[in-house]
Amino acid sequence: MAKSKAPKEIPNKWQDELKARRKAIWEIAQEKGCDAVLIFGSPGHSQPFRYVTNFAPELGDMFALMTGENEISCVLNFDWRLIEARRISGIDNWQGDLQAMPLIVDTIMNIPRIKSLGVVGTSRLPATDYYYMTAVLPELVTTDISSSVNRLRHKKSAFEVELLKKACNITDEVFATIRSELKPGMTEHEIAARITYLINSQGAGLSFEPVVITGNNDPIMIRATTNRAINVGDSIMIDIGAEWEGYQADATRTFIIGKANPKQEVVWSMVCDALDAAILHLRPGVPMNKTHYAAGRIIKSAGYELIHRVGHGIGLATSFEYPSLIDNTSPFEAGMTVCLEPGIYTKGAGNMKLEECFVITEEGYEQLTHADTELIIPV
Amino acid sequence: MAKSKAPKEIPNKWQDELKARRKAIWEIAQEKGCDAVLIFGSPGHSQPFRYVTNFAPELGDMFALMTGENEISCVLNFDWRLIEARRISGIDNWQGDLQAMPLIVDTIMNIPRIKSLGVVGTSRLPATDYYYMTAVLPELVTTDISSSVNRLRHKKSAFEVELLKKACNITDEVFATIRSELKPGMTEHEIAARITYLINSQGAGLSFEPVVITGNNDPIMIRATTNRAINVGDSIMIDIGAEWEGYQADATRTFIIGKANPKQEVVWSMVCDALDAAILHLRPGVPMNKTHYAAGRIIKSAGYELIHRVGHGIGLATSFEYPSLIDNTSPFEAGMTVCLEPGIYTKGAGNMKLEECFVITEEGYEQLTHADTELIIPV
Repeated sequence: MAKSKAPKEIPNKWQDELKARRKAIWEIAQEKGCDAVLIFGSPGHSQPFRYVTNFAPELGDMFALMTGENEISCVLNFDWRLIEARRISGIDNWQGDLQAMPLIVDTIMNIPRIKSLGVVGTSRLPATDYYYMTAVLPELVTTDISSSVNRLRHKKSAFEVELLKKACNITDEVFATIRSELKPGMTEHEIAARITYLINSQGAGLSFEPVVITGNNDPIMIRATTNRAINVGDSIMIDIGAEWEGYQADATRTFIIGKANPKQEVVWSMVCDALDAAILHLRPGVPMNKTHYAAGRIIKSAGYELIHRVGHGIGLATSFEYPSLIDNTSPFEAGMTVCLEPGIYTKGAGNMKLEECFVITEEGYEQLTHADTELIIPV
Repeated sequence: MAKSKAPKEIPNKWQDELKARRKAIWEIAQEKGCDAVLIFGSPGHSQPFRYVTNFAPELGDMFALMTGENEISCVLNFDWRLIEARRISGIDNWQGDLQAMPLIVDTIMNIPRIKSLGVVGTSRLPATDYYYMTAVLPELVTTDISSSVNRLRHKKSAFEVELLKKACNITDEVFATIRSELKPGMTEHEIAARITYLINSQGAGLSFEPVVITGNNDPIMIRATTNRAINVGDSIMIDIGAEWEGYQADATRTFIIGKANPKQEVVWSMVCDALDAAILHLRPGVPMNKTHYAAGRIIKSAGYELIHRVGHGIGLATSFEYPSLIDNTSPFEAGMTVCLEPGIYTKGAGNMKLEECFVITEEGYEQLTHADTELIIPV
């Protein structure tokens, strides 16, 4: 592996942000007595890698080796996106090799001062890679610093919140458009495809495949879209998110064309009340699980169950982003970004869920999604 | 973990196929002296898991434990898609838990006859999971049977080829539509979003995010789409694939609105010749790397380089599917499915690539993609 060079071409607006992140990670390494840091990412688990490089491919494993605050070299286990990676990350030293770990190990061997390695993403490192490293470098002391680096990521910078707001704004606009376009006869596939088009055509990505679950008699928390055509009176649950420069919104609306039946009316009002009850706990210092139990109590009072956690973190990921708002007694802190998504899934009413995004502020919270929450679309 | 039950609700048309797969994997286990098989999948590496279950979520890890030909229990490390997984797989026993490996280990501990475990996906198993298993079950003998199971997957059944044909047909139709719609002023984002819509609205998925690279002066093998608007005379390279029930097409066309410049004319004819040269080697018994070198020679004869492998397997994945058609001297076998994708990326001509899908037959090959390859779209 060639000697790493200092980053020099970071896209302008990212320059200060990436510098600050790299500095903070390097400080963690020094606190922990590490001479270098290895950040591992794999598909679905690339957030720390993206945090430091501003790049994460759809496929393949990612290794970033920091040997100084501004000395970073990266290896992917395929070679076809290296030029793009250099452009986006401002890091010159990218290599691609199906056997990526040996390149990392070689670099470490060639820098004798590295006696102790901080590792981020240890729990995702494939067993074979981990064995290779410990077999070839038996003297190397490794320290898992994942949780310290992830703690950095939990509190978003103003720059990150702006990117999330942009993702939420796009999501809001898409809800406004799709609300105006829903017509009896459209299929779930068509609705999802139209939403994807509305998001992608502006250059945004998807936080996840749009979830469009319709009908009142086969409630299910989540499933792939089907060829089912919507009817007047159906609950139409749409859970979507736009991704902007890596930052992922996550929001849900439920619509009914025409008129709600009595069960839908009750269920929907419980869902809205549950969201309001959870929101009351969004402020620094409040144990995070209070949001879940507040929403759950409301739903239970109506004879239903909140069958999933009320919400979770959002940022460079959604469902797998810290914090999980259920068995979590840690307090909210200003700068955390979360979604709240109470829902009830019951025969006769179908899937009914409402979901909004928030950033915790010093004073309480700021809501990031604002699309109309009105259930009914007049025929 | 509850005792596993025999599968009983496999969707009809999948019934024989899944039975045959499970039988074949169980035979491998018996040959290797294994009393059970653990099949591990993670995002981007879920193919063997999907092969046996017909299901693979976008996110999270997947564990399938076979304790008999028709005794399968599955664990995901999240719990929100279990109902859907049961419906699709015909396997009753699905569980979701953030700590999935302990559930698998418990099941193994409760079946004393399991002394030897075949593992598929060993190289992807997170180090922490592997350590947990070997620490709790120090007597268990584990055997990596990944390559035997993957060999099963390399030769497609007639059923699988039909699914791939459907994926290729959808891809062909999308090329026909987008060819008719390309107009100066459309942006790469818009073109990619339209393609995604055309694929998704029929209920198909994407093999990968559409690659749309346009313009003649910034050739790059691959990159994300940009807001660049297309002009008359630009090379417009579109590399896309529809996914149908898991099976992924992968095809590329290059278009020019108006007239090709002299360099584009030469480059395009070399690309077409390179494809023809590679196709000549598609038949059982021929070393697979011959396709790469045949295409490379043609491209070199024009003063360019084939800077990536000429092709790769297609099936439940694309780029990471066996075989890789470069340093591979193994012979083609009937039933293998591959794509060939020679391309030249050079200033003045931009990105020019042509890619088709094939199945190897006893006699030679059958081409699966058929979209018009004509470069020029009249103004």
